[in-house]
Amino acid sequence: MNIIKKIFSKSRSQEDGIFFDTIQKILGFQPVSIDFYKKAFTHRSSNKLDEQGNAINYERLEFLGDAMLSAVIAAHLFNKAPNGDEGYLTKMRSKIVSREHLNELGKDLNLVRFVESKVPVQHFGENIHGNIFESLVGAIYLDRGYAFCEKFIQKRVITPYVDIARLEGKVISYKSLVIEWCQKEKRIFHYDIFEDNGIDGQRLFGVKLSIDDKVIARARATSKKKAEEKASQRAYFAFQEKIDKK
Amino acid sequence: MNIIKKIFSKSRSQEDGIFFDTIQKILGFQPVSIDFYKKAFTHRSSNKLDEQGNAINYERLEFLGDAMLSAVIAAHLFNKAPNGDEGYLTKMRSKIVSREHLNELGKDLNLVRFVESKVPVQHFGENIHGNIFESLVGAIYLDRGYAFCEKFIQKRVITPYVDIARLEGKVISYKSLVIEWCQKEKRIFHYDIFEDNGIDGQRLFGVKLSIDDKVIARARATSKKKAEEKASQRAYFAFQEKIDKK
Repeated sequence: MNIIKKIFSKSRSQEDGIFFDTIQKILGFQPVSIDFYKKAFTHRSSNKLDEQGNAINYERLEFLGDAMLSAVIAAHLFNKAPNGDEGYLTKMRSKIVSREHLNELGKDLNLVRFVESKVPVQHFGENIHGNIFESLVGAIYLDRGYAFCEKFIQKRVITPYVDIARLEGKVISYKSLVIEWCQKEKRIFHYDIFEDNGIDGQRLFGVKLSIDDKVIARARATSKKKAEEKASQRAYFAFQEKIDKK
Repeated sequence: MNIIKKIFSKSRSQEDGIFFDTIQKILGFQPVSIDFYKKAFTHRSSNKLDEQGNAINYERLEFLGDAMLSAVIAAHLFNKAPNGDEGYLTKMRSKIVSREHLNELGKDLNLVRFVESKVPVQHFGENIHGNIFESLVGAIYLDRGYAFCEKFIQKRVITPYVDIARLEGKVISYKSLVIEWCQKEKRIFHYDIFEDNGIDGQRLFGVKLSIDDKVIARARATSKKKAEEKASQRAYFAFQEKIDKK
């Protein structure tokens, strides 16, 4: 097995190797055919064609990824909300797979850094982030099948973001929950905010949330408010888990 | 294994046994938990509740089945139409999973015979057929997972109905193709039509298509025209296979 790995990594160029490793980190498992993932980041402006003359770009993969995402989220909501009716499930899914949310997911993973294009990445609109998030899911389906799409979506969408109370509008702000809790428990909290520019020059904000001088949660997002909210949510769930374990 | 089967069939009532066997025939594989399938045919008018007080009926399963159906059809089209763009794939899928088509699928399997309801089945609108087709797919997902949904949809939707040329509107009528071919080849054809009422009293039409006094294809549908068309399509594909094998 290791010998095969070595042969493969020798025949792969260094650039491919870096791409392979980064994708593997994002996926949380090993890709088998890296070509699917390369396609997932190829913009139509590259004008690439395969041997049969079909265009190589991520647009068809978006269609496939969107379908897999919808199915996985449907199954998740079905199980997590046993008393939600059809209308409720449909509404909750729309919130999770909304254009805005998918753009955020793509941005958080900084997927845009992989895009192969003849147009400068800065010229793309906001939707590029969500589109390549979908095409990445499509590539996972082709490469490893439905169960791995499920695994990836669990790791990158459901665990960090899908919180039914929040989606239902019952929780407006995790930051206010954290502050409330700290005041009640007489704890000292501090949000440490810093600017954090990725390799593509995209402006991002990082937040470290400390309680009693101990860093409890970290987050990165496209605005200070979003980063604070995300760190607060993580802290909230971390504390919830501790409470549950008691 | 056989002993376990016998124990199970003993503990199951006779009615359950018949339901189990019929569902197995429709699925093409063995159900594991028959309760999912019972739920798939339970109408809300039954007013059933589970131990937690959640409604037991097929409406939530419809949502799940619809999502799985969309994903499986998306993957099929992605593979079968390598030069179709995102817009084309979306349009083709809409045709396959249209309300009208799903109703037809449910009707052809006569799924309505299993519906448990306090309202007479005749009082339901047309959509009941498609709705329970979807809920059946949802039950398959819960019982056996995505791969078995794929298997079922391949057997009951894709193989008998999904014909890309037809969906693209390139083939208007299989009946006219059959007639044209018979005239060219100097064969004698005959459509034998008869009324065929199912156990639920639903009016259906059966067609036997003979060529040179040999029955080539049979079909059942809700109108004479549809039944003829379906039998013609089956004959067309049967002949195509023969021609391909030469």
